[in-house]
Amino acid sequence: MAEISMNKARTIIRKAFAKGRELDLKPLAVIVLDAGGHVKAFEKEDGAAPGRYAIAHGKAYGSVMLGMAGTAQMARAEQQAYFIAAANAAYDGQLIPVPGGVLVRDKRGAIIGAVGVTGDTSENDALCAVAGIEAANLLAEI
Amino acid sequence: MAEISMNKARTIIRKAFAKGRELDLKPLAVIVLDAGGHVKAFEKEDGAAPGRYAIAHGKAYGSVMLGMAGTAQMARAEQQAYFIAAANAAYDGQLIPVPGGVLVRDKRGAIIGAVGVTGDTSENDALCAVAGIEAANLLAEI
Amino acid sequence: MAEISMNKARTIIRKAFAKGRELDLKPLAVIVLDAGGHVKAFEKEDGAAPGRYAIAHGKAYGSVMLGMAGTAQMARAEQQAYFIAAANAAYDGQLIPVPGGVLVRDKRGAIIGAVGVTGDTSENDALCAVAGIEAANLLAEI
Amino acid sequence: MAEISMNKARTIIRKAFAKGRELDLKPLAVIVLDAGGHVKAFEKEDGAAPGRYAIAHGKAYGSVMLGMAGTAQMARAEQQAYFIAAANAAYDGQLIPVPGGVLVRDKRGAIIGAVGVTGDTSENDALCAVAGIEAANLLAEI
Repeated sequence: MAEISMNKARTIIRKAFAKGRELDLKPLAVIVLDAGGHVKAFEKEDGAAPGRYAIAHGKAYGSVMLGMAGTAQMARAEQQAYFIAAANAAYDGQLIPVPGGVLVRDKRGAIIGAVGVTGDTSENDALCAVAGIEAANLLAEI
Repeated sequence: MAEISMNKARTIIRKAFAKGRELDLKPLAVIVLDAGGHVKAFEKEDGAAPGRYAIAHGKAYGSVMLGMAGTAQMARAEQQAYFIAAANAAYDGQLIPVPGGVLVRDKRGAIIGAVGVTGDTSENDALCAVAGIEAANLLAEI
Repeated sequence: MAEISMNKARTIIRKAFAKGRELDLKPLAVIVLDAGGHVKAFEKEDGAAPGRYAIAHGKAYGSVMLGMAGTAQMARAEQQAYFIAAANAAYDGQLIPVPGGVLVRDKRGAIIGAVGVTGDTSENDALCAVAGIEAANLLAEI
Repeated sequence: MAEISMNKARTIIRKAFAKGRELDLKPLAVIVLDAGGHVKAFEKEDGAAPGRYAIAHGKAYGSVMLGMAGTAQMARAEQQAYFIAAANAAYDGQLIPVPGGVLVRDKRGAIIGAVGVTGDTSENDALCAVAGIEAANLLAEI
């Protein structure tokens, strides 16, 4: 199973920011977690709100811990809110069930980590995450 | 009151996994708690997401702590979500109110522990828990 | 980097227990964590105290999170207690700095997880962890 | 009061890593917090242990929250351990009182954030933090 190296993590973050600037989005925060949910890298653009780390982290952390990306978590939250609320609590609040938490898979399809983007709308956040992941030659699952 | 011995706990887990393989389910995680809610045994199949321990544990823990298995907790969550949310918080997030948390009773009907299964749909998780419990010659309440 | 499969985790636990029986130790609890600190497997012998899960988990979790096995953590605790106390708090209490938390390395020397054993003296706990790890054809660092 | 921009945060991290490679240190993790203690940026070198984020964060967070860098916190811990233990608990475990937590001041001397470095000895960690901060044309207080 491939790992997300620090260099790939940097590429993911830079290209996610580049997408944000291309789409003229609000300032973004981007985090990269490894397959075990541990932080590999994080950056926050100037002007982003102080609490964006926790949102970016929660989007990515919930995704990798459950093996379920943000879009799927959101669908589950719509159908069975109490389950997502309970899962959030099981992870000490570190689960944010909306788009922008994107699973990262290697070429063989194995989950090797997750990216969390926050700052604009959830859908735009997810677009930026995908741009970053694909620029790092990895597969994105939103 | 009978206890769930380590050997019975192993049987429960193995037979739960066997049911999962028979039904071609996704990789599962199975936990066995004793009557006091303490962990007796746990195993996670290869390929299961890293956060499955917390979900399996929460399903079983909430069940034994309330004396209410997952199906009943889910019904309560549908009717009175704020109660289940409060109970979840009372247990530091260690309550996941969906099927897969199954009470274990001895032949006289006393609750002697609980099993938590996660990895596939909640209903399939519960099926596997029952298979394991019954293979250990105990009674299952979903 | 090799992973600890469920089968290897079972071998580790069984052989750790076998060592305990060979040495006529008190009932033991054994946990196996993966490289990210997530629970792969756990078993507790009949007669072990209810709280042994947390001790076994903390021994292993602190070891893998810091990349520092129990013996080294104990030495650090003796020299700089406030650092170990702070690290324990950083991990929400999930760090028990005594022997019995043993790092697992693959043949190339990479850390692929950790084992935590508790129930007897720390030194005997560590012996059992080593026996289990070596029986699984992996390298143990106490 | 000057702020630590994202670009300066990147410089701090890169130059801290460069110092680490120059001194042939173990893999490092580096975090940059702003004046409010919020995460600006973080990176972890390949091969660093999974738990290094919490240690780097705790070193920096305690420093900026108390306005007291790691060296001073360590001196306080040696003299009055119960105070540092209490402060650690006041911050939910997010205070690691050893060198490597370095305050960042602007040219007028105002604290504008903190850097946390971990991975090698505390003293070497601090050296790397200073190298990064000074490369960003800011003042470092260890």
